[in-house]
Amino acid sequence: MACSYFLRTLPRTCLQSAKPILFNPARTFSSSRIQAMLTTELSETEISALRANKERLASDLHHSCQWGSGIRWGDGPTDTGMQRLALSEDDKSVRDWFIQTMKDLKCKVTVDEMGNIFAVRPGRRADVPATFIGSHLDTQPTGGRYDGILGVLAGIEVIKTMNDMGLETEGGVGVVDWTNEEGARFPMSMISSGVWAECIPLARAHNLKEVPTVASLPTAASAPETMKSALQKIGYLGDIPCSYKSTPMAAHFEVHIEQGPYLVSANQRVGVVTAVQAYRWFRLNVIGRDTHTGTTAFEHRADALYAFAQMMVRAREVAASKGCLASVGIVEVKPGSVNTVPGEVSFSLDIRGPETKLVTEVEKELRTDFDAIAATEGAGIGKPCRVEWTLDFDSPAVKFHEDCIDCVQQSAQAVVADASVADTKSLVRTIMSGAGHDSVFTSKRVPTSMIFIPCKDGLSHHPEEFSTADDCATGASVILQAVVRYDRKRFL
Amino acid sequence: MACSYFLRTLPRTCLQSAKPILFNPARTFSSSRIQAMLTTELSETEISALRANKERLASDLHHSCQWGSGIRWGDGPTDTGMQRLALSEDDKSVRDWFIQTMKDLKCKVTVDEMGNIFAVRPGRRADVPATFIGSHLDTQPTGGRYDGILGVLAGIEVIKTMNDMGLETEGGVGVVDWTNEEGARFPMSMISSGVWAECIPLARAHNLKEVPTVASLPTAASAPETMKSALQKIGYLGDIPCSYKSTPMAAHFEVHIEQGPYLVSANQRVGVVTAVQAYRWFRLNVIGRDTHTGTTAFEHRADALYAFAQMMVRAREVAASKGCLASVGIVEVKPGSVNTVPGEVSFSLDIRGPETKLVTEVEKELRTDFDAIAATEGAGIGKPCRVEWTLDFDSPAVKFHEDCIDCVQQSAQAVVADASVADTKSLVRTIMSGAGHDSVFTSKRVPTSMIFIPCKDGLSHHPEEFSTADDCATGASVILQAVVRYDRKRFL
Repeated sequence: MACSYFLRTLPRTCLQSAKPILFNPARTFSSSRIQAMLTTELSETEISALRANKERLASDLHHSCQWGSGIRWGDGPTDTGMQRLALSEDDKSVRDWFIQTMKDLKCKVTVDEMGNIFAVRPGRRADVPATFIGSHLDTQPTGGRYDGILGVLAGIEVIKTMNDMGLETEGGVGVVDWTNEEGARFPMSMISSGVWAECIPLARAHNLKEVPTVASLPTAASAPETMKSALQKIGYLGDIPCSYKSTPMAAHFEVHIEQGPYLVSANQRVGVVTAVQAYRWFRLNVIGRDTHTGTTAFEHRADALYAFAQMMVRAREVAASKGCLASVGIVEVKPGSVNTVPGEVSFSLDIRGPETKLVTEVEKELRTDFDAIAATEGAGIGKPCRVEWTLDFDSPAVKFHEDCIDCVQQSAQAVVADASVADTKSLVRTIMSGAGHDSVFTSKRVPTSMIFIPCKDGLSHHPEEFSTADDCATGASVILQAVVRYDRKRFL
Repeated sequence: MACSYFLRTLPRTCLQSAKPILFNPARTFSSSRIQAMLTTELSETEISALRANKERLASDLHHSCQWGSGIRWGDGPTDTGMQRLALSEDDKSVRDWFIQTMKDLKCKVTVDEMGNIFAVRPGRRADVPATFIGSHLDTQPTGGRYDGILGVLAGIEVIKTMNDMGLETEGGVGVVDWTNEEGARFPMSMISSGVWAECIPLARAHNLKEVPTVASLPTAASAPETMKSALQKIGYLGDIPCSYKSTPMAAHFEVHIEQGPYLVSANQRVGVVTAVQAYRWFRLNVIGRDTHTGTTAFEHRADALYAFAQMMVRAREVAASKGCLASVGIVEVKPGSVNTVPGEVSFSLDIRGPETKLVTEVEKELRTDFDAIAATEGAGIGKPCRVEWTLDFDSPAVKFHEDCIDCVQQSAQAVVADASVADTKSLVRTIMSGAGHDSVFTSKRVPTSMIFIPCKDGLSHHPEEFSTADDCATGASVILQAVVRYDRKRFL
């Protein structure tokens, strides 16, 4: 989809006059303040020398993780996971902190009707949208400290570095916290960037109910909240329409842990994300018949759970045969009694693949296979199981924007150039994202790309999810440079 | 185990004097009252002519089902299932009705500390325990109108028929409602007859918590109740110790729907239950690792749910190969998010077989196979799944008592003798029970046997569970005669 706000072709005459300054890239920017340094006047050497502050980033990140600390896995003060479900009290606390932090950094903060928080450091031009750095502060119920959180915290670090340097951009630079990216509490991932992109209707999002499996957590009410009631409850139902038209962006950059094993196992430091794999989320119901476990022979059963078990085994076989993934994360079994054969099972099915077409092929084959499994179970009594599919979410494969990819690629090469290896270029690779991110939706409306950094064991959505402070700082430095390069691309 | 209270050898000299009466078996007993008819003085012809009142039994049974009516499956007034979980408000209501009914029938009612209700119609001798008819009034969350309920209602009908006839027994005749037989709300079936038999410690039973999967039903509190707190809440924590020593029985008879297809598919009318198959209930935990569904290749997963699915498929294979059953009724998946590979799954496993040894063999083979499945899933990352077993309940195979079986056998043949088929004997068969019943525990302490009647499609633990009024009356007539025959066996 075309970008409505991409201003690369803006005539140079629109630029205001600016005072050139001398600038030595060998200096540590964060420790000194320089008046009116302009992105448009930096040399390539100067840009390549831009670095985020590793210690400050790590300190801020762990500070923000005091709200919603989760399962402890080690002895260190930061050796806990996170359980900061979207719009929980902990999410409110970290949002309050984020807003105050950005205001202290002289940013203008707005909140839209999905609770998305936009903090903009003004550029020299008031008439153009800002380039955004964004991600999310919510986590999985048993998540870690980096997924999403690093993306927002890297944004804060970029603003702090720019302030310290006195760097003035032409367009503004924004940081956005997208609501409920995980889809863990409200079961639609990236829902709020989806509404912003006008790909998901606001009413559908507002009416979405929290999932019962999460309702037992202390963050959720005993009766399921809707997103709207949850937004109201914590005071984050903003009055600005949630739309790319009301809150325009010039571009969207996002730094994220890889959540996979490729970078870490190849000892690489940066992934330049060029695309996101396709995925489809389904909810399936298998309907059989409740019967007594002790008196009902196998051939007299229509055991919905046994049918499910066969389906799950088959799903992996089919997905693997096509280089795709198929996963079940939620299962509900009724009536749920030790000595009753379950008559109803509902479960989630998440199918992913590098191409939209492959995901569709897996789905098609599984529809046939699941029908066959259901038809067999219960056939002996003439009352076979049946299976119903509902598509909850459809995210076709995404290709990121060449301009953004270029900025990230150049920045990544520049940042890893310090490394003590012969061929520093080998530390950077292009990569496809296995997971969805808010960048999927921003890419529908504005140029977008992402930066991956390695994470331990490729693990995420787990309390032990971990990236080193060095890798986090590398990601922040790359996104800092990428935003500067993009500003120059727009206005130089 | 020997019966402490079986008084067959009591000397005849203990019998009080009794006035003989004339008795014509062609009469309808329920419509006329005869003074001081004695069991010891009935002829075999007279005993064989004893019948329960079909219409009254059906009317009482459906009347009692007003408390806890469940899912509707047809248009008729009684075309609903039942959801009368143990110690719920509905269970309290039907208990109150049961007690009032028995008091109106001149029975002495006592309640023990497990909430078991014993109603005794006194016999001519005050110094001997009563012969009991028993079953349970609780149901599965999606149960029907016959499982358990018929057994108690048949007991009421026996007392009513005896009262109408003016039949005096030597020992008393009791009706017992055993608490939480289903094990649906408090996850241990036959728990209260188990405490009575001193096979389950009282404290363990009192401390048992209701299962979370049932907690969402309107009958359960939001915080899990223990059995003791639930008994207190509805006023059924009696002060009589729950023990066969405090509430002795001469014998225990139980009429029940078959819950299987053998009688109904062979057009047979009565099953003389000689034994109960063995079963063991386990709770298993599979521990893997939470990871992201989109970024974690299959070979990098330790997917506890995928391991579970393979286990369930394997459990059926192994059980079937040994003529046993294996069933999963409860599954809990953590963390329960669409895009997180589940790191923990706990599930119930119910293994049954005709012999204790076969159940043990299935268990042994599954322990090996489940370990192998767990070891494979996650092996790629050196963090394989592991599986833990907990035995929740162990019920070895039971052989019922020859004296009780004889009484039931003779009574069944007598009751079906009216049938318009050439060989009425073919309408009765001996049968093994697939399900556990309170009779399993009573059989540990006193002579016991059971009577099965056909049920539609062999279906139970389902709202559409159904037996005809004729079949129910047959069951009640058989138990009526069996109790009379047993009384004669004791004292003649």
